[in-house]
Amino acid sequence: MKFCSECAQPVNLLIPAGDNRPRYVCVQCDMIHYQNPKMVIGAIPVWEQDGQTQILLCKRAIEPRYGLWTLPGGFMENNETTAAAAMRETQEESGANIALQNLFTLLNVPQVHQVHIFYRATLLDLNFAAGEESLEVKLFSEQDIPWDQLAFPTVRKTLKFFFEDHAKVKAGTGQYEFHTHDILKRKDRPD
Amino acid sequence: MKFCSECAQPVNLLIPAGDNRPRYVCVQCDMIHYQNPKMVIGAIPVWEQDGQTQILLCKRAIEPRYGLWTLPGGFMENNETTAAAAMRETQEESGANIALQNLFTLLNVPQVHQVHIFYRATLLDLNFAAGEESLEVKLFSEQDIPWDQLAFPTVRKTLKFFFEDHAKVKAGTGQYEFHTHDILKRKDRPD
Repeated sequence: MKFCSECAQPVNLLIPAGDNRPRYVCVQCDMIHYQNPKMVIGAIPVWEQDGQTQILLCKRAIEPRYGLWTLPGGFMENNETTAAAAMRETQEESGANIALQNLFTLLNVPQVHQVHIFYRATLLDLNFAAGEESLEVKLFSEQDIPWDQLAFPTVRKTLKFFFEDHAKVKAGTGQYEFHTHDILKRKDRPD
Repeated sequence: MKFCSECAQPVNLLIPAGDNRPRYVCVQCDMIHYQNPKMVIGAIPVWEQDGQTQILLCKRAIEPRYGLWTLPGGFMENNETTAAAAMRETQEESGANIALQNLFTLLNVPQVHQVHIFYRATLLDLNFAAGEESLEVKLFSEQDIPWDQLAFPTVRKTLKFFFEDHAKVKAGTGQYEFHTHDILKRKDRPD
């Protein structure tokens, strides 16, 4: 940030009175321009048939991570809820018709100023198709998930949590829980 | 937003190619200035003694809602996790020493472009004191909570969820769950 978005004068990076960290402050109108983390919201679309469980993944047609696989998701917009964002992003990227279930994971990615949230979801039919931001959308069973071709560590971690809980549900020994996790370093990315 | 924060030229509100909603776009450098919801993170500091349960609340010394009571909390900063934000805000507003427990509520407030998150927390000692943004900090048992003097509907809802779950825990009939809720209209505020 170089200029004030309200008066077009330059901004300085300084610690305002009563604050404890540097902010961009306009040299003319004194407006403080706060910068805060963004939320990325997605879904885990689950297709169950003949005792088999499959997850819908999207192959990214955009940067970053062009060509890698992700759960449908994206930046939450103003004027919507987290659930509405999960539905919208799933529809935009995969055309999938889903029924949203509980919020499943909340993952911090502080080094990129993001918080990622994923909902479990039931895929209602097979009428999905790649949206503008996807090259391909496809169902994967656990053993077929392209673990070394996943776009983001939060997607990998969410899928791991999902299949762990899913095994417990199938065995009758547990249920789907809500999970939190911090992705603290870039080296924690899928290898 | 009136001017581009990168080149100081005016911005127009228009729908960029490939997008589906209006964004502020610079007339000169074409930068798209996205605006997204912000996260407000807080804690529920719980003090248990002699079978009594009390919650630490802060009386706000700043607008909005000057003079009303709130759980300690505030805007999440870049480069921190949600848990770190809850610890920091609690320390800043109440000086309280807490041990953070599980994430407890996630509440959407779409009309103000915010998502509020609260963690349960154990208050470790009674060495708390009002910070710069608080007029007073004080412990309240359930029957003494100033329900008609609470600053935000998300605080009210979080306290309601807390005491409902707490009653189940005390009775041995349940546990603390993770709760989500949407605050959809201003008329839903505490009355």
